[in-house]
Amino acid sequence: MSLSSVNRRVLISILTSLPALSSPLLTIPALAQTTPSVNPLPSWNDGTAKRAILDFVRTTTDTASPNHVPAEDRIAVFDQDGTLWVEHPMYTQVLYCLERVPAVVEKEPKLKDVAPFKTVLSGDREAIARLSLRDLEELLAATLTGMSVEEFNAEAKKWIETARHPRWKRPYTELVYQPMLEVLQFLRDNGFKTYIVTGGGQDFVRVYAGQVYGIPPDQIVGTAGGTKYGYGKDGKPVLTKEPKLILNDNNAGKPEGIHLMIGRRPYAAFGNSTGDREMLEWTGAGSGARLKMLVLHDDAVREYAYGPAQGLPDSKVGTFTPALYDEAEKDGWTVISMKSDWKRVFPFEH
Amino acid sequence: MSLSSVNRRVLISILTSLPALSSPLLTIPALAQTTPSVNPLPSWNDGTAKRAILDFVRTTTDTASPNHVPAEDRIAVFDQDGTLWVEHPMYTQVLYCLERVPAVVEKEPKLKDVAPFKTVLSGDREAIARLSLRDLEELLAATLTGMSVEEFNAEAKKWIETARHPRWKRPYTELVYQPMLEVLQFLRDNGFKTYIVTGGGQDFVRVYAGQVYGIPPDQIVGTAGGTKYGYGKDGKPVLTKEPKLILNDNNAGKPEGIHLMIGRRPYAAFGNSTGDREMLEWTGAGSGARLKMLVLHDDAVREYAYGPAQGLPDSKVGTFTPALYDEAEKDGWTVISMKSDWKRVFPFEH
Repeated sequence: MSLSSVNRRVLISILTSLPALSSPLLTIPALAQTTPSVNPLPSWNDGTAKRAILDFVRTTTDTASPNHVPAEDRIAVFDQDGTLWVEHPMYTQVLYCLERVPAVVEKEPKLKDVAPFKTVLSGDREAIARLSLRDLEELLAATLTGMSVEEFNAEAKKWIETARHPRWKRPYTELVYQPMLEVLQFLRDNGFKTYIVTGGGQDFVRVYAGQVYGIPPDQIVGTAGGTKYGYGKDGKPVLTKEPKLILNDNNAGKPEGIHLMIGRRPYAAFGNSTGDREMLEWTGAGSGARLKMLVLHDDAVREYAYGPAQGLPDSKVGTFTPALYDEAEKDGWTVISMKSDWKRVFPFEH
Repeated sequence: MSLSSVNRRVLISILTSLPALSSPLLTIPALAQTTPSVNPLPSWNDGTAKRAILDFVRTTTDTASPNHVPAEDRIAVFDQDGTLWVEHPMYTQVLYCLERVPAVVEKEPKLKDVAPFKTVLSGDREAIARLSLRDLEELLAATLTGMSVEEFNAEAKKWIETARHPRWKRPYTELVYQPMLEVLQFLRDNGFKTYIVTGGGQDFVRVYAGQVYGIPPDQIVGTAGGTKYGYGKDGKPVLTKEPKLILNDNNAGKPEGIHLMIGRRPYAAFGNSTGDREMLEWTGAGSGARLKMLVLHDDAVREYAYGPAQGLPDSKVGTFTPALYDEAEKDGWTVISMKSDWKRVFPFEH
C-alpha cells in the first residue's frame, strides 16, 4: 500500500489509541515457521488461492515442465503493509514517525512552535487529520533523517521492540500473517529468492525483516532516501541519512525499484492495493508461468474488512478499488480472501 | 576506478585500435574456477597479500575467534575496472558507448551533424580527445538510454560477446584476473556473499557478471540511471531506461551505494584506485577483522604498469595516487602487487 496515498483520517484514529508510555523493552518472539513437508501451507484452506500457489511452484520447479525456471531466476516479491502484516489503523512507519516528534523537538526546541510539529504535539486530532501530504513529508524528513545510519537503526529497533498495536496489544512484528510466512518459506524451500517490495521505508523495514520474515537487508526494496558520506569529529567515516528521495517505491516506483535493486523480472508477486498494481502487471507480462496474487481484507472479525469487501463498490476507504478487482479478473490474478482462504491469520492464534 | 575521471587521452589510443568489424559471435568461455581445497588460492604466491586473505577468512569463520562473523553478515565487495578485469586502455563500457554511436545516428540521422556525435563519427582522434566530460555524458545518455531494459540487455550482450581487446584480441570477459576469481570463489566457499561495487553501469555489468564472476544481477551495485514504467503500443508494460542519474557509484557514492543496495557494512573490500578510497575506509571503520585490499598495477609485461608503479611519485596517469598509497600504509590496507603476488594474471595463461 502507498505511503503517499495515506488516508489522513487514520491519523485521528491512531492518536486516540496511542499508548501513554512505551512498554518495557522486549525481544521479538520467534514466529511460527513451516518446514518442508507434505502439506507446506498448513494455514491455508483448500481453494483457488492455495491451488494457484502449489501449481505455480510445481510447474516452475519441474525440470520436465515447459514452465521450468532456472534456480537463479526464481524471484518472488511481496508488498509488506496489508500483504505481510497489518496496515490498520495506520502504517506502522507513519506511527513511528509521529511518535518520534517529541524527541526531535527536544533536540531542536524551536520546532515546538512551528507547524506541523506544533500540530502533532498539540494532540489535536482534528488538526492532525488536516495535515497535508507536504506536512507529512516534512515530518518524515525531520524524524527519519539527519542522523547516522547506525543511529537510525538503533532508534527504530528500540521502537519496534516496545511499540504495541492498539487493538491486539502486541508488537507490530507479531501481527504478521501466518499463511504468508508459510508462502515465503515454501517458496524459499523451492529455490525462490524472496524480496519485500514496499512503499514503506527501506531502512525501517530492514531493521526487523531478518528476524520477522527471514529476509536479509539486501532483499528489502523500499522507499529510499539518500545518504551522505562524510567524517565525524574523530575522523571516522559516517553515513548520514539525507532528506533526499531516491526511490518512491509505490505504484510505478515498484517495478522501477525492482529493476534498480533486483535487476530481473519476478516470477511471483503478492500485493493488496493499487500501489501494487504496476508490480503485478510487470510480473504478469513476463513469459511462462507467473503468479500474481492480491490479499483481500474481508475479515472484520479476525482482522479488518475494507476496500471492496465492505460492499461499497465505489468505496475509497481501502485502496483495493473496484478497478483493481476488475484488472485482477481480466488478467488472471488470484484474489486471496482472508476470511475464506486462511485457517488462521496470526502466528499467535492456535 | 572512476568513469567520471576518465582520462580523455585513452580515447585516442583506443580509436587507433578499434577493430574494423565485429568478430563473429562467440559464447563466453567458461573460466577456470577453483573448488574448495587445501590450497584455495593456487594463482597466488606466498606473501603478505595471500596471507592477509587467508588470515581474514580463518578468523572471521572460526566460531571460537573473537572476530567471528555470523554467516548472514559476511559481505565482500569488489570494484570491477582494474580490480577484477583490465581497465586499460579504457573502460570497456566507455568503449561500448563510443561504438554504439553509429547505430544511434542511424536511428536519428539529424545527430550526424551535431557535436559530440559528429566528432565521434569523424574518427578525428585529436578532436575526440578534446571532448568534455559533459560531451561524454551526452554520449552515455544517447547510447545507453531511451530503450527498454530488454533491448539494452540484448544490445550489450551482443557487443560483449563480439568485441575484442586490442592487445590480446580476446573478449573483454576473458581479461579477468584469475587470482581474483579465486578470491571470489574462496570467499563464497566460506559463506561470504560477494558483490561488485563499480563506477561502471549497473545494467551493463549485470549482463555478463553471472557468467564471468558467478555474481547475480542483484549483487551488482553500479552507477545507475532511472527507468520509467509505461505501456507499449500493444498495452504491455515497458520499463524504459532514462537519462536520469540515480546513483553515481564512485568515491563517496560507493559507500552510499552499498548502503542503498546492500544495507550493511562489508567485512572485505577490494579496489585499485582513488574511486575506491571511501569504500575501503567505510569497510575499515567497522569493528572486528576487516579486509581492505588494493590492486597495484605494476606488471608492464603481463598486464600494465601505471600509477605509483611507474616510479613517478606525483604521477597523474593512474588514479592509484601516492596519497592513496599513504592512506593504505597508515590504515593497514594491504597492497596486492600484480607482479609479485600473482603467479598468473589471466585464466587463459597456463
